[in-house]
Amino acid sequence: MPRTMQAAVFVEKGRIALREKPVPEIGPLDALLRITTTTICGTDIHILKGEYPVAPGLTIGHEPVGVIERLGSAVQGYGEGQRVIAGAITPSGHSNACLCGCGAQDGAGTAHGWKPLGGWRFGNTIDGCQAEYLLVPDAMANLAPVADRLTDEQVLMCPDIMSTGFGGAESGRIRIGDSVAVFAQGPIGLCATAGAKLMGATSIIAVDRVPERLAMARQLGADHVVNFSKEDPVEAIRRLTDGRGVDVSIEALGLQQTFEAALRVLRPGGRLSSLGVYSTDLHIPLDAFAAGLGDLGIVTTLCPGGKERMRRLMAAIEGNRVDLRPLVTHHFRLRDIAEAYELFGQQRDGVLKVAIVP
Amino acid sequence: MPRTMQAAVFVEKGRIALREKPVPEIGPLDALLRITTTTICGTDIHILKGEYPVAPGLTIGHEPVGVIERLGSAVQGYGEGQRVIAGAITPSGHSNACLCGCGAQDGAGTAHGWKPLGGWRFGNTIDGCQAEYLLVPDAMANLAPVADRLTDEQVLMCPDIMSTGFGGAESGRIRIGDSVAVFAQGPIGLCATAGAKLMGATSIIAVDRVPERLAMARQLGADHVVNFSKEDPVEAIRRLTDGRGVDVSIEALGLQQTFEAALRVLRPGGRLSSLGVYSTDLHIPLDAFAAGLGDLGIVTTLCPGGKERMRRLMAAIEGNRVDLRPLVTHHFRLRDIAEAYELFGQQRDGVLKVAIVP
Amino acid sequence: MPRTMQAAVFVEKGRIALREKPVPEIGPLDALLRITTTTICGTDIHILKGEYPVAPGLTIGHEPVGVIERLGSAVQGYGEGQRVIAGAITPSGHSNACLCGCGAQDGAGTAHGWKPLGGWRFGNTIDGCQAEYLLVPDAMANLAPVADRLTDEQVLMCPDIMSTGFGGAESGRIRIGDSVAVFAQGPIGLCATAGAKLMGATSIIAVDRVPERLAMARQLGADHVVNFSKEDPVEAIRRLTDGRGVDVSIEALGLQQTFEAALRVLRPGGRLSSLGVYSTDLHIPLDAFAAGLGDLGIVTTLCPGGKERMRRLMAAIEGNRVDLRPLVTHHFRLRDIAEAYELFGQQRDGVLKVAIVP
Amino acid sequence: MPRTMQAAVFVEKGRIALREKPVPEIGPLDALLRITTTTICGTDIHILKGEYPVAPGLTIGHEPVGVIERLGSAVQGYGEGQRVIAGAITPSGHSNACLCGCGAQDGAGTAHGWKPLGGWRFGNTIDGCQAEYLLVPDAMANLAPVADRLTDEQVLMCPDIMSTGFGGAESGRIRIGDSVAVFAQGPIGLCATAGAKLMGATSIIAVDRVPERLAMARQLGADHVVNFSKEDPVEAIRRLTDGRGVDVSIEALGLQQTFEAALRVLRPGGRLSSLGVYSTDLHIPLDAFAAGLGDLGIVTTLCPGGKERMRRLMAAIEGNRVDLRPLVTHHFRLRDIAEAYELFGQQRDGVLKVAIVP
Repeated sequence: MPRTMQAAVFVEKGRIALREKPVPEIGPLDALLRITTTTICGTDIHILKGEYPVAPGLTIGHEPVGVIERLGSAVQGYGEGQRVIAGAITPSGHSNACLCGCGAQDGAGTAHGWKPLGGWRFGNTIDGCQAEYLLVPDAMANLAPVADRLTDEQVLMCPDIMSTGFGGAESGRIRIGDSVAVFAQGPIGLCATAGAKLMGATSIIAVDRVPERLAMARQLGADHVVNFSKEDPVEAIRRLTDGRGVDVSIEALGLQQTFEAALRVLRPGGRLSSLGVYSTDLHIPLDAFAAGLGDLGIVTTLCPGGKERMRRLMAAIEGNRVDLRPLVTHHFRLRDIAEAYELFGQQRDGVLKVAIVP
Repeated sequence: MPRTMQAAVFVEKGRIALREKPVPEIGPLDALLRITTTTICGTDIHILKGEYPVAPGLTIGHEPVGVIERLGSAVQGYGEGQRVIAGAITPSGHSNACLCGCGAQDGAGTAHGWKPLGGWRFGNTIDGCQAEYLLVPDAMANLAPVADRLTDEQVLMCPDIMSTGFGGAESGRIRIGDSVAVFAQGPIGLCATAGAKLMGATSIIAVDRVPERLAMARQLGADHVVNFSKEDPVEAIRRLTDGRGVDVSIEALGLQQTFEAALRVLRPGGRLSSLGVYSTDLHIPLDAFAAGLGDLGIVTTLCPGGKERMRRLMAAIEGNRVDLRPLVTHHFRLRDIAEAYELFGQQRDGVLKVAIVP
Repeated sequence: MPRTMQAAVFVEKGRIALREKPVPEIGPLDALLRITTTTICGTDIHILKGEYPVAPGLTIGHEPVGVIERLGSAVQGYGEGQRVIAGAITPSGHSNACLCGCGAQDGAGTAHGWKPLGGWRFGNTIDGCQAEYLLVPDAMANLAPVADRLTDEQVLMCPDIMSTGFGGAESGRIRIGDSVAVFAQGPIGLCATAGAKLMGATSIIAVDRVPERLAMARQLGADHVVNFSKEDPVEAIRRLTDGRGVDVSIEALGLQQTFEAALRVLRPGGRLSSLGVYSTDLHIPLDAFAAGLGDLGIVTTLCPGGKERMRRLMAAIEGNRVDLRPLVTHHFRLRDIAEAYELFGQQRDGVLKVAIVP
Repeated sequence: MPRTMQAAVFVEKGRIALREKPVPEIGPLDALLRITTTTICGTDIHILKGEYPVAPGLTIGHEPVGVIERLGSAVQGYGEGQRVIAGAITPSGHSNACLCGCGAQDGAGTAHGWKPLGGWRFGNTIDGCQAEYLLVPDAMANLAPVADRLTDEQVLMCPDIMSTGFGGAESGRIRIGDSVAVFAQGPIGLCATAGAKLMGATSIIAVDRVPERLAMARQLGADHVVNFSKEDPVEAIRRLTDGRGVDVSIEALGLQQTFEAALRVLRPGGRLSSLGVYSTDLHIPLDAFAAGLGDLGIVTTLCPGGKERMRRLMAAIEGNRVDLRPLVTHHFRLRDIAEAYELFGQQRDGVLKVAIVP
């Protein structure tokens, strides 16, 4: 095994670049993965633009598929050479937050055991996976073996996009017979659409303005699509639901406009499930909030992680419940990652997700 | 039985006055109650001030204790002369909303069966109970017999204040061991405090600025009180929870300030249960919302109604789990209701709730 | 409208026969339907055999599709001539049980508002729908309009089979990624299989011994089928789940053998959702129950009813989430219902469900 | 620190005796506690009698209060000398079961991550705490610091009795206004009674035959007590609930008789929460099970563990929500543990729980 590796690091606002870094040394609870496939997330673009601050020199990326290269001395139940994924969020398993089922807010190391976003470590508080090798902390809680019959690309969406999008459907507590509106059909919105279908929503309305994304939404489960550049989505959804509104709306973009629309389309007693990463304060109009008397719910979800979550998502893929390979529109080598960032950041060429292979 | 009765009606903005009105005639599903005790709600003050619009001439009031005077031809299971209460919210029982367990948003009569606030009829869309007689619609879903050993005043808080306050604790899904902050200790906030205790919260922090209300909060279950005129409640609550924040916060006032504070004191993954009737748009600061990544929940609750709800609340009183009689600080005759409105509207003389007897 | 009608009545143990009866007279809350399509249920066979006692002379049947012929004086929101269905269970909407969301145990008319199986009225405590006309009680809570684009046969399974089968999946609280075993693939088991798929189960194992039923199970969503006449289903399911057991098992037959197997195949912490109508005591082996220490759950479900339930089920059909028409294997005229009973009771000719048209 | 210690070990059926054993050596994730107080559980009596098999030579006991003597090399967030408790169940935090919130069925080390009762290690699969020293595995998930103001005896019930008893109330999903029956008022039943009160049950019926236990039940929250040696408890509970039955029943003994009675006293749609450790098969009478049509639930609970659980339980004690010190009726030195077993096993002298101090 080499001593050094190539890694995409955050240099400064506006610049992520390949650098040579030491291959990580692992502790007793860690594992070292050799990355075989990874991808770029919208959040990485936030980091690139300086909208979400990380330390200069940090390796970016939180969606790893790889092979176990080495296991910490206390790690049991895995073997070197095994192909695995780990979630974007890597709960320790032992914090108070984790023991409450809230591993994304893992506060391992704090006095009380909770920390906002504390479970998100890869490419945020520790080095990420846009590199040749990756240290996975708390390996026993996080490494999920990949079945031989699944390719890297089939499971590439599990660590973040699929877990987050499905999480939006789950947090919306969708039931058989629900009508659901999903605002924005980027990768996460598309997965939310697929998740809504998988949970039994019987009328799914997908909103976007890019025809290709709306077409993909149909493919993944949307019954109706609304192009918001052509019609007002609130009015369209009211009409499609005979004036009643939807049981659940999912916000998957992170803007005031979509958040507000997602609130307005709810039936009384409905629930807004928010997945977006916002960068501004939000405004709740009195009428959209029914003056506080509408029995409405708003819930936000950070990508659920941990090996059991990954196992379940892979089971959905293996069971042919959903196929997210069409989301991978472009392929790059790690050495060309700058190009990949450029394409993905500009949303050029109909890009949805890229696959990056070291 | 007389043909006419005294009733407190909304005359115009700023004026509720006694008027002589016909005693209601009932339909097959209705009941006619002779009111024995009622009270005034903060919402009635909103109506008085014109902040919540109702039709001129409407009888106000939605918290009835009374005796069945007459039963509609299709009503079974009750007897004339029986003492009963009905909730402030009177679900029909047969709308789609009701059949989903969401009777407060009852849309009986609409095509799809949902209507914002549709279950709130008394003193809103039909005549209320600040009168000698009251027509109760859908009587079989709404009349709850009062046990002989309970006085009118013991159950006077059930129709609204207790149902709403407890509903705030319930919507917060409080569990044994939770820490809970309750913002504002008016009648509803006090009931939320009592409800939080009843559900197993083990550290309850009550916020207000009126010493008497904070003292009452302690009596009803608060472990800590914070006088926000003396200290910043967000800082105080952070300190009282060792920097962690509360599991659940309850907003019981209806202002931006309390809503925002209730959001800021949550631990990651916490839940804000909102009871306030707001009269302005709300603003959610980006940091208080953890940029959408904090696994936070916000849920609003309109007073749950129906006879089963009333039965359960009365069971809590009969079982000595809570005693809300201390909330009734003043007594009036119906003919003096103008005086009662004046006192209650001005929050004079330490008033919490008034009892009004025709 | 005629004064009399043909109806299939329970004469005595072993004998259901057509009789001429008066067309029902309706009360203020009722509706009169002209039946256009109905069917026979396994429960009707229990009644026929005297295993489930009903009053001689009672009209049998609880799965109605029909047209509104007349509305009670207090019924609003419907029009004569409208095509509707009503659930097998007809909750009043106003009992304590209903107001708790438990309409199948509706105790309208009792002092406390709960009665075992009280919501099941058609063909049990009041005349049923294997007749030309049907009185529907509490019409506003129970009549669900059928969209023009849906045929009678498309919605014929909604009142009972689909509601019950889906209810089994729902009571099992199936989540995305669950493995589920469904014991017996009669009409209800097949619907449970379809419901499990609709809720996100990613590995569904269907058990039966009839090849045609197992084939139909595959068509409706089963990933694996186990023919229990050829292999031990407990062993087979253990093997298919790598020794782990299933998250949820559904019992859809009503025998000790299937109940016990459904318990044995659970993973620790799993849940048995029971739909069967049992006719003997049950026996729980100590080991299958993990001596009470396995965090296991057992839950039984009686067919959920009410118009909102029917609306949701029809939404699943209209949204092409499931197509249950293949379950209707045979057609009869009402006048030939004796023949239909004979075929269905003997399970001859691959019968799953019959459609009966007056 | 000494090399050897005294420990109560299972010698053979009928014999638990003090033996000198080496003080445990700890691994990187473990902690070594010096036990300051412990107790004997009913389960230990099952072990003593050979009804629950364990390996000869195993140290018994699973309810530790102690002081951290030494920490494994990978354990962070604790200090030597800190006073702590650990639950009877010690979840690893990283198994699939744990990541599903089901740590009592922890399958760490198995291929799929689930194992019946796998979380119960102390005095079952590894040495327990009736000794001078205890090795706590997965220390970071399990050590819960005890506040200075709480004595050992105040928290002695947390590891098992209180966690299990409260767990019975929680698994019963008790809500404000529920009526609850608790069968048997031994230590666990008494804690279930206290837990039911803490969750808002407003009518709690405690069943036993020992007057002192019934008196203690009243002290901990029971509204009614039924001495089953004087009256039939099913009839008594039916009468106390006006014929309706209870919303939730809790079985806390582990016998057919109590299990069956707990089923029979349920209202339709009710839920039996079972805590007992059974030693025979169970029998479910057809009528008590409503032939499978009663919307009934049965759920079993194994003592929830982990440090967050312990923290919450101690919060209830610190917040004066419950005081379980009266359950400690007798005190012994570790060297006299044989005497303690004799007293506790015979249920002599009104013993409820004993405190044992090394």
